[in-house]
Amino acid sequence: MSKYSMLGQLIAHPGKRDELAGLMLESAETLQGMEGCIFYIINESVDEPDVLWITELWETEEAHAASLKNEGVLAVIQRCRPLIAGVKPVKLRPLGGKGM
Amino acid sequence: MSKYSMLGQLIAHPGKRDELAGLMLESAETLQGMEGCIFYIINESVDEPDVLWITELWETEEAHAASLKNEGVLAVIQRCRPLIAGVKPVKLRPLGGKGM
Repeated sequence: MSKYSMLGQLIAHPGKRDELAGLMLESAETLQGMEGCIFYIINESVDEPDVLWITELWETEEAHAASLKNEGVLAVIQRCRPLIAGVKPVKLRPLGGKGM
Repeated sequence: MSKYSMLGQLIAHPGKRDELAGLMLESAETLQGMEGCIFYIINESVDEPDVLWITELWETEEAHAASLKNEGVLAVIQRCRPLIAGVKPVKLRPLGGKGM
């Protein structure tokens, strides 16, 4: 089964990036014990003040899909929603490398 | 000391992405034993046929800088160069999450 990679920009409403990052870091806490999540990292853009980049790697696409049904994750998504002005996902296929 | 994140697009010359990905995967082999490299993953874009995305996490910015002086890494960079039409780095500050 091939691994599943997610990459995406979250664009916060002006001035709301830090608050959004805080909530996303809480969501990462929920993922700590979640099976199939290899990494899930919240980054802030250096050049774009309202932009976060989320980089994720999962054992399978199914593991990622299952995480989106987790109650803790859903609760965080609900709380993030009012802070988010836009989302730009980048569809990737992970090929290999260190840490996979 | 804070961790160091790299994210970037490599745009191959038309039709050269697979060859470029193969070389980049060799470079990842060189990094397997390299201190300070937490992950270094080569992904292909699903929607853009000439684009690779590289996602990296390092223990420190210095560890990343040191890797660029490694002879094996430099040799791979030289071999990749003729296949690359463009590079778009995204400057990030990693904030936290699972796998950091």
